[in-house]
Amino acid sequence: MSGSTFGTLFTVTSFGESHGAAIGCVVDGCPPGLALTEADIQAELDRRKPGTSRHVTQRKEPDTVEILSGVFEGKTTGTPIALLIRNQDQRSGDYSKIMNTYRPGHADYAYEHKYGVRDYRGGGRSSARETAVRVAAGAIAKKWLRERHGIVIRGFMSQLGEIPIPFKRWAEVDNNAFFAPNAEIILQLEACMDKIRAERDSIGAKIEVIAGNVPPGWGEPVFDRLDADIAYAMMSINAVKGVEIGDGFGVVAQRGTEHCDELTPEGFLSNHAGGVLGGISSGQDIRVALAIKPTSSLPQERRSIDRSGQPVTMMTTGRHDPCVGIRATPIAEAMLALVLIDHALRQRAQNADVTPPLPRIAGLAPGAQQDIPPPEA
Amino acid sequence: MSGSTFGTLFTVTSFGESHGAAIGCVVDGCPPGLALTEADIQAELDRRKPGTSRHVTQRKEPDTVEILSGVFEGKTTGTPIALLIRNQDQRSGDYSKIMNTYRPGHADYAYEHKYGVRDYRGGGRSSARETAVRVAAGAIAKKWLRERHGIVIRGFMSQLGEIPIPFKRWAEVDNNAFFAPNAEIILQLEACMDKIRAERDSIGAKIEVIAGNVPPGWGEPVFDRLDADIAYAMMSINAVKGVEIGDGFGVVAQRGTEHCDELTPEGFLSNHAGGVLGGISSGQDIRVALAIKPTSSLPQERRSIDRSGQPVTMMTTGRHDPCVGIRATPIAEAMLALVLIDHALRQRAQNADVTPPLPRIAGLAPGAQQDIPPPEA
Amino acid sequence: MSGSTFGTLFTVTSFGESHGAAIGCVVDGCPPGLALTEADIQAELDRRKPGTSRHVTQRKEPDTVEILSGVFEGKTTGTPIALLIRNQDQRSGDYSKIMNTYRPGHADYAYEHKYGVRDYRGGGRSSARETAVRVAAGAIAKKWLRERHGIVIRGFMSQLGEIPIPFKRWAEVDNNAFFAPNAEIILQLEACMDKIRAERDSIGAKIEVIAGNVPPGWGEPVFDRLDADIAYAMMSINAVKGVEIGDGFGVVAQRGTEHCDELTPEGFLSNHAGGVLGGISSGQDIRVALAIKPTSSLPQERRSIDRSGQPVTMMTTGRHDPCVGIRATPIAEAMLALVLIDHALRQRAQNADVTPPLPRIAGLAPGAQQDIPPPEA
Amino acid sequence: MSGSTFGTLFTVTSFGESHGAAIGCVVDGCPPGLALTEADIQAELDRRKPGTSRHVTQRKEPDTVEILSGVFEGKTTGTPIALLIRNQDQRSGDYSKIMNTYRPGHADYAYEHKYGVRDYRGGGRSSARETAVRVAAGAIAKKWLRERHGIVIRGFMSQLGEIPIPFKRWAEVDNNAFFAPNAEIILQLEACMDKIRAERDSIGAKIEVIAGNVPPGWGEPVFDRLDADIAYAMMSINAVKGVEIGDGFGVVAQRGTEHCDELTPEGFLSNHAGGVLGGISSGQDIRVALAIKPTSSLPQERRSIDRSGQPVTMMTTGRHDPCVGIRATPIAEAMLALVLIDHALRQRAQNADVTPPLPRIAGLAPGAQQDIPPPEA
Repeated sequence: MSGSTFGTLFTVTSFGESHGAAIGCVVDGCPPGLALTEADIQAELDRRKPGTSRHVTQRKEPDTVEILSGVFEGKTTGTPIALLIRNQDQRSGDYSKIMNTYRPGHADYAYEHKYGVRDYRGGGRSSARETAVRVAAGAIAKKWLRERHGIVIRGFMSQLGEIPIPFKRWAEVDNNAFFAPNAEIILQLEACMDKIRAERDSIGAKIEVIAGNVPPGWGEPVFDRLDADIAYAMMSINAVKGVEIGDGFGVVAQRGTEHCDELTPEGFLSNHAGGVLGGISSGQDIRVALAIKPTSSLPQERRSIDRSGQPVTMMTTGRHDPCVGIRATPIAEAMLALVLIDHALRQRAQNADVTPPLPRIAGLAPGAQQDIPPPEA
Repeated sequence: MSGSTFGTLFTVTSFGESHGAAIGCVVDGCPPGLALTEADIQAELDRRKPGTSRHVTQRKEPDTVEILSGVFEGKTTGTPIALLIRNQDQRSGDYSKIMNTYRPGHADYAYEHKYGVRDYRGGGRSSARETAVRVAAGAIAKKWLRERHGIVIRGFMSQLGEIPIPFKRWAEVDNNAFFAPNAEIILQLEACMDKIRAERDSIGAKIEVIAGNVPPGWGEPVFDRLDADIAYAMMSINAVKGVEIGDGFGVVAQRGTEHCDELTPEGFLSNHAGGVLGGISSGQDIRVALAIKPTSSLPQERRSIDRSGQPVTMMTTGRHDPCVGIRATPIAEAMLALVLIDHALRQRAQNADVTPPLPRIAGLAPGAQQDIPPPEA
Repeated sequence: MSGSTFGTLFTVTSFGESHGAAIGCVVDGCPPGLALTEADIQAELDRRKPGTSRHVTQRKEPDTVEILSGVFEGKTTGTPIALLIRNQDQRSGDYSKIMNTYRPGHADYAYEHKYGVRDYRGGGRSSARETAVRVAAGAIAKKWLRERHGIVIRGFMSQLGEIPIPFKRWAEVDNNAFFAPNAEIILQLEACMDKIRAERDSIGAKIEVIAGNVPPGWGEPVFDRLDADIAYAMMSINAVKGVEIGDGFGVVAQRGTEHCDELTPEGFLSNHAGGVLGGISSGQDIRVALAIKPTSSLPQERRSIDRSGQPVTMMTTGRHDPCVGIRATPIAEAMLALVLIDHALRQRAQNADVTPPLPRIAGLAPGAQQDIPPPEA
Repeated sequence: MSGSTFGTLFTVTSFGESHGAAIGCVVDGCPPGLALTEADIQAELDRRKPGTSRHVTQRKEPDTVEILSGVFEGKTTGTPIALLIRNQDQRSGDYSKIMNTYRPGHADYAYEHKYGVRDYRGGGRSSARETAVRVAAGAIAKKWLRERHGIVIRGFMSQLGEIPIPFKRWAEVDNNAFFAPNAEIILQLEACMDKIRAERDSIGAKIEVIAGNVPPGWGEPVFDRLDADIAYAMMSINAVKGVEIGDGFGVVAQRGTEHCDELTPEGFLSNHAGGVLGGISSGQDIRVALAIKPTSSLPQERRSIDRSGQPVTMMTTGRHDPCVGIRATPIAEAMLALVLIDHALRQRAQNADVTPPLPRIAGLAPGAQQDIPPPEA
């Protein structure tokens, strides 16, 4: 299957370049009967769109979505849902400086060795602009998961550069430009970003995403495990260099007696596993973390080569995010939603007739400690 | 596509339970003309097999592989290669204690909520025994990658519990039971494991895998990126809870000026990206790390519930690895090989006619610092 | 994989309803470097578009295609090519009569039992309007096949109702509204159609498609045989009820001595197999025939039921083709092109390194009889 | 996806050559809880196996199947079911005559141009022996369809060479070596076959398959229509050259008023469509026909070429079916079952929540004419 399609049953086929006519996707396999309007999707797109604070790219893109098909009288019909977002601010600048050079840390060199051609107008297909489409498709997935299963998916920034962001309250996340769950730290984050910009540099970030109310039983061993598909989904986001489930790399130094989540009739006593056991959801919160690299678009002279192999120095000017992690939270949420809806459908395809042996236990027993509470709708 | 098939063009369809008649797989899409014998595969299986030191499970499985099809006169024919490994030591013990309880930290509870049935003879399909099949299939992939592209894939343990294992030399890796690239640390590792066993506990580990000589251009954006498929492959291995590419979670605190790998005519000046840019191989070493949790099979009383929802305490006896990370290195190598061969085929499917713009630069410029040298054949 | 995506490596993901905002598709996996403009695609669309003669639907659709992505500076980039065709003549009529009834012979009843909803504005997703997208995507495939391999794909009508259409010359096919390879029979065909319309009835047709210059070796046994994928592709076209390869149902009464195509150094002595042996192309012309049913949209009273299960009589008014076979030739050509390009890529994915044993023999030996000559560009 | 895997959710991955160690497959995605034993599968295999009458190949293969995995305590577990059939009668003859020549009408030439190698011991992978695996996997699908949905799938021979076989009674089908639904014609068929063998020739046949009790709503437009997937499945069987749904090629000469199946509250008034409308099952019997060519294995001198391109004459000796159609009925039934179970799962994946608008009507109204009655269990 071609690399621009995500999913097995609920599929998203993405298209579009940062400086082309439009970006968009075809969502196929969506269950029929879901109430859906462009406003549902737009709300998520607005969370990710550029130009909303001084800390992100100043490109002006309203990211207005048009539903071209698959919805009739306000409900999904079960047929493909095509989503279209016209590009508005694809400035046709002077590309003569960059068309024959490879920006270091960017995909230019790799793309040209792959395809033999390069869309030098900007990132082209490798631009983070593509992620708007994921958010749009994810909005549909999120809505179905919430309405059908009560699943709530929320993310937040847990670290910016060297600044850890202690989790305070879900309610804070949408009150700041960083998706930080902590109002007290915002000034510090803003100061950090102002410094980074002043120094013409960029910075990394860590994002966490949690899905609550996921029923046990989703995931397809031995390869398409729920956690494996989550890792694939997250690592497919631009700039992501690491993915963790549950305690992630923390497990390396753990003992089994510490890591192993015990069960009681009242619920699990901890959630080190992050909601996945043997590749299948356990009914606990799905917990995912991702590492996002500092962007390589730096307004400083850097060494590189040109297409004839000669050394050059170049700086990347233009409108870029000094921390791509800032806008990554809605994208990570969207990708988690896309994985979950796909596995929801896969699970009932094979196992619709299964009667579970007994009522499921609670995700977490009353009183069990968990640093981050279940996400709130 | 069902969850037991890995890959798009070079596919591995796995089957078998830990206590059933056999495990095995069908490898389809292998290029014809590859010299292949059972000995080629057996050599890799022997690296993973149980019972080779006191630090791993004492189950006695010779893991003898039989090639059932797809090879004629010592060469692959291009048709499906079926591999069969009969189980030898699937002791039929007394399951009455565990058949109605869910081992904490295991897949029992999740499996039964998924399928409505459970193979209580052991881990069943969720057992790490399944990974032998990955190693067998990976042996074919490794051989083709090496012969066709000169690619060398090697892994090692870089941390055991709280003990970091500094990289010394590739030559050490196969000289000890831990796949540690450092002879001096072996006594410390053995002491750690002896202590863990004595305390009836288990411990986590970190594994790293590197592929050298991978040509630029492999990977299928925007979803089937090379790093996304690697993350998927690694997270699909039992007990893996985190995956990193290149600097991984280290990027969170990095600046762009630090992370971004500059290019010169002589090669890249660093490899923070881990050999992947924009989801496509850059010609640098592919660097992957994975976090492996401590096994949940603990010979200690732990709280759990039974199938009627009543509280129980149970301990997991039997033959288990106190550190599943010890045998994970060959598995991680195999999964990386499976990803790479699949993308090698995908790349030439679409881009066989592409003439790259110029001779590629070296993975690393002479004198550029890299903590771990390219893997040696 | 969802049902709106065609192909394995060269994929077409289709969307759109007959009375929605637009139809279109995303073509992924196209090799880069192919010169491509909207005019290349428009030329094929114009062959299929409605309203071009009195014998087809009078719906006025210019079927103007817009390329939204994947083409830069006149060449494909290897990234997804999105094609958009806005609907122009989706008259919003009075649906009150049909919204609660099932048109007999149409997909209405089946669609509503599948999805629980129905787009009653017209055929919706089941309308033959969807086939415009196939023609658009097929135009890209055709162009690549011709430029890269010299493959020529052409179709024609070989029977209209009870009138067989003897093959005369390829040059005639584009000179009439029927795609008939025979100028002398046109008056007879027109008389037949005028009679059918006058009688408020519809009629079936038989279409044949031939691909010349296909190299030997394409097709993926044992399931994704070239002929199996062709059968799938053709039967997926609206109104098709039968598919034949080579002699098709003629083989039932044949002897082996008659059917079996002998080989000589100068070429094959006949082509009963239709260019496929064991599911793999043999280097002979690929020959395909398809049966197209008379449309069920009849302006006569017919018995049916309504959504509450009550009997009704209804007639289908509106703009319909009295013989959907008339416009089917470009669609069948497109589908054959889509199958062939997909297998071209699949073949080189696995077997790019294969050196065939000797120069291939000609498709047909000089002097060997074949009723239809190879298609001309 | 590789060509040896059939299906999207219920997948069959096939392996094995006619003269290798074994043939078999991995069935993945089977719903758990299905009672399944080797005897269930063996019963179907015995219907297809060679050597059961003088009219078929005399190769002695018991075709004994072993279930290697996926079944526990007599029920499917939802994990992959591996089936193994060891080859018994793969005589190692003298291949020196054929190893360097291409048998005319066989896949030899095409296979070697594809893979660059050939398994000259016999048909290798292209042998009809591979179809035993389809029958084995189909037995599982058949059982689930019957138990879960009451679906009955039965086939029969409707024509042998030039002898049409009028349908009499389902009960006759298993009473003769031809799967003929007509006792009176058996002598004529036997005489035909004796004559063919005496003349060292072979002959074609037509097979029909019918599935009753299929619920409406199965099939995934616009490409993975139920009829499209059936066409793909049937054409993937060795020697099949044509596939029809419902009236098939008969529709070419039909009028719409004749073809269109009217609906009444009591049921459909006819079944020209063959149970599929718009690519979705309508609740009527699924009716499929296939054309099977005369085998090309002829014990007569035929012209061909050798691997150096030189002309040769050769005759195919050995044990062959003079009419491969005779053993094709169980294979066609199996393929139809595999398509149906796959679509059953796909349908509930997307549309499990759909409430159909009203109770479905009967497949056929009482008194409506249909030449062949619904199949009997």
